Amino acid sequence: MKPVITAFACSPDEGQGLARDMRVRWALEEVGQPYDVQLLSMKALKEPEHRKRNPFGSIPTFEHGSLTLFESGAIVFHIAQTWPGLLPDSADARMRAIAWIFAALNTVEPPIVEHEVARYFEKDKAWRYDHLAMVVERVRHRLDDLSAHLGDAEWLDGDFRAADLMVVLVLRRLDGSGIVETYRNLAAYVARGVARPAYQRAFADQAAVFAAASKS
Amino acid sequence: MKPVITAFACSPDEGQGLARDMRVRWALEEVGQPYDVQLLSMKALKEPEHRKRNPFGSIPTFEHGSLTLFESGAIVFHIAQTWPGLLPDSADARMRAIAWIFAALNTVEPPIVEHEVARYFEKDKAWRYDHLAMVVERVRHRLDDLSAHLGDAEWLDGDFRAADLMVVLVLRRLDGSGIVETYRNLAAYVARGVARPAYQRAFADQAAVFAAASKS
Repeated sequence: MKPVITAFACSPDEGQGLARDMRVRWALEEVGQPYDVQLLSMKALKEPEHRKRNPFGSIPTFEHGSLTLFESGAIVFHIAQTWPGLLPDSADARMRAIAWIFAALNTVEPPIVEHEVARYFEKDKAWRYDHLAMVVERVRHRLDDLSAHLGDAEWLDGDFRAADLMVVLVLRRLDGSGIVETYRNLAAYVARGVARPAYQRAFADQAAVFAAASKS
Repeated sequence: MKPVITAFACSPDEGQGLARDMRVRWALEEVGQPYDVQLLSMKALKEPEHRKRNPFGSIPTFEHGSLTLFESGAIVFHIAQTWPGLLPDSADARMRAIAWIFAALNTVEPPIVEHEVARYFEKDKAWRYDHLAMVVERVRHRLDDLSAHLGDAEWLDGDFRAADLMVVLVLRRLDGSGIVETYRNLAAYVARGVARPAYQRAFADQAAVFAAASKS
């Protein structure tokens, strides 16, 4: 039986790969596990049936046999634990790789989401540039550290792992801001991530959903 | 050999239990595992020796035998995996309990940290109330869902687990804002959490560090 994930029937990002089912699609493509997708309207997200899967009424969720999961971080972690390829084998290296998943979501992502919110939801505010400048400083603070850690390495900690997939997609949320481009090694890191065949397949599948929705 | 964690020599919260080593202290107290604490000055946090432990130069870190970890979420997860008590035994329930750790850190916490930042770092801005109102709305959006999920239950998903510890401490970051108090069940949930003997021991130990620092 294939796992079933949920995704937006009509993604607010218009198929640009930023909706969080992309994390799960990419992880499943990396491990070579086929899956089915259930598309949900914005209205369906808030209904009791979906709330049972995810109390916060968002996508993605993951159903496989008797297991129902929410939270993209947890789902990617579960995929990495279930199928080989996204976590190292030795106990210490494995736990460090897991720590990087948490770092992606709890240290790198939050100021980047704040930046997104500031860009899109404060457009009509007189103080938008003043606030955005403060947020950009917090984003740069994290990226300075991330860039210093990465140095000339290809991935965060040895081979390509679940956390790389997370960090690449988190950095992609800054697309169009010009921020990542000021870190030569981070820009190259994102480019390496999105060039992976598994990313390309996941991106094409997510984009196809939006293309189909806009035709109908 | 006891694990060694790092904590602020002089916490910015003045011993109120909000520094993130509290998460790790509380988890270790719940599972009954003694530990040592290495206190770090703000300057020591940014030095290469600590950066090797945590590339983002923050606390807490966790060292135990050959393993060095950073990210409070990862450390609490590791504690819960290593010593019994903070995760259920059955595979599905265990994975759902892990999903709640991710939810605490990636869904519930981010708007609450934004709220903290807005309260403390935008004090001198003319637009502070305008922005704060927007952030409060995002915080309430999450707490509405969290409160609806919790209902009259004691903990998030059955017995007290690692995610409860996380969510209680995340909600405590709203202390003084009056927001949690408007959700009767969430206020009671936080009260149940902080009444636990393991919380009390962890809180006293963290407060003692600040008390000693302010005397010296």
